[in-house]
Amino acid sequence: MWEDIKAIYQQIGVLAKIDAKDNNITSLFMKVHLLCRDFLFGLSTVELTSRIPGKNYFAFSTNRQSRAVNADLFIDFESVERIILCLVNDELESTTPEEITRALYTIAISFCCVVDLSKDGDQKTPGTFFELFVSHWFARTLKVQPKKSIEVLNLDMKTALPTDYIFDLGVNRPKIHMPVKTSTRERVIQVWAHQRVLDGIYGTGRFLGMLVSLAETQVAKKQVVSEICLPDQWRLYQMFIAQLYRVYYLDIPNKYKELNRIFPPIVVRPLGEYFYEIKDLFSEY
Amino acid sequence: MWEDIKAIYQQIGVLAKIDAKDNNITSLFMKVHLLCRDFLFGLSTVELTSRIPGKNYFAFSTNRQSRAVNADLFIDFESVERIILCLVNDELESTTPEEITRALYTIAISFCCVVDLSKDGDQKTPGTFFELFVSHWFARTLKVQPKKSIEVLNLDMKTALPTDYIFDLGVNRPKIHMPVKTSTRERVIQVWAHQRVLDGIYGTGRFLGMLVSLAETQVAKKQVVSEICLPDQWRLYQMFIAQLYRVYYLDIPNKYKELNRIFPPIVVRPLGEYFYEIKDLFSEY
Repeated sequence: MWEDIKAIYQQIGVLAKIDAKDNNITSLFMKVHLLCRDFLFGLSTVELTSRIPGKNYFAFSTNRQSRAVNADLFIDFESVERIILCLVNDELESTTPEEITRALYTIAISFCCVVDLSKDGDQKTPGTFFELFVSHWFARTLKVQPKKSIEVLNLDMKTALPTDYIFDLGVNRPKIHMPVKTSTRERVIQVWAHQRVLDGIYGTGRFLGMLVSLAETQVAKKQVVSEICLPDQWRLYQMFIAQLYRVYYLDIPNKYKELNRIFPPIVVRPLGEYFYEIKDLFSEY
Repeated sequence: MWEDIKAIYQQIGVLAKIDAKDNNITSLFMKVHLLCRDFLFGLSTVELTSRIPGKNYFAFSTNRQSRAVNADLFIDFESVERIILCLVNDELESTTPEEITRALYTIAISFCCVVDLSKDGDQKTPGTFFELFVSHWFARTLKVQPKKSIEVLNLDMKTALPTDYIFDLGVNRPKIHMPVKTSTRERVIQVWAHQRVLDGIYGTGRFLGMLVSLAETQVAKKQVVSEICLPDQWRLYQMFIAQLYRVYYLDIPNKYKELNRIFPPIVVRPLGEYFYEIKDLFSEY
């Protein structure tokens, strides 16, 4: 079963290099998701003890145990299909930001859980899958092929800087710098540092930094789930390294949600809202 | 054998929290080193194929294989003892920067090899050992106890920022920000980003950034050893994120050595030179 899922996932990787917004990629993601649901169907689940106010988690369990799944965000296959169809047909009025967040969360977390249950300690495959998945939706909505490196011409120095995803909307329009991570933890300082380098090379404000992340949950001993957050450090990075324009989460951590209401704010939102705000975000340019 | 080494190593960790410059710690490092030499004595070695001009490497081999060891830097126990005695007695004229680099390299790499041969995939223990080892020599020479977090008082925000080692030389004197890594790779951008945060909070120039690293070697298939270096990215970080004052290596990579001769330079030196330049570095303050 994992081999079938892997084959399609690898096919997505190949297609995305040519045209990340390709409709066939959407279909392949749905095919992967159907296989993941088959994989997870009927598996026993473990109720986790949540230390996170207002959130409930479970995990899939075989001889291995999957990562934590947010019970309120995990929805059935038919709903996922219906919501994705709204996205594909650009019928946003037939769904909601909350529904979109749930559908995208369900597809992403299902794949991650299948990997968790199929191999030991593989963080790379979920990470790459999530990159392909998120960049697909941004490529679809922005109608731009993302790049993963950028030319640096700096007086006598010419080199290609490897980057996270860059969406170049064209002359006199914004360029988007989009790091994608299943979770951030202490490595997140890299995101601000890369933004700083882009600001320095091309001028502050030319690249809008948009971080997309899945969740910050961690399951500790005795099946206790908590969110590993460093909000004070995020504030220092935002003040002293560079400014991120948006942070989107599928399972938005409570501590980071609060950063919207602390001055100077960091704008942290559920990913579903992106699809509704994108028209305003770049409409004037 | 590993259990004996581990016990002393843990004792060093406990003592270092109280007084990192303690003479007893130097003795314990020598005791660890003697046990490591016993461990490695008589093991078979594999000649590695070096892709690095002017450098030769081998690895210790049991049912596991150790990391690459620079054959020209790895010296016998008696020499290590003699050179460390010069350091302890502050008789720098009886040794040389090259000898000190070799002695410190030999102690550090021996411990790392013992861990490589004792367990699978443990990067944390060599990393922590190397932090304790390097911070001991800096604490000895600077006569200051390092800290690993720093108070941030930023208008209405009071928090402790976890940092790499900080050596505070006192009022109106430099403070040293010292990240210690067995190797840097793509994570190195964190070093410049942390320096940037310190510059932003306390003012540029108040903290001298001094990165200390062991080596950048990697053994690939067919026993080929190469150095993983990103000199162009280092230059961009130095230009656009923050300025590091020194980078010290025990096994200095060729590509980073060249950065000394490219304007604007990044000063990258073998760690042995630190012991001779320290008097000039901070003498006027």
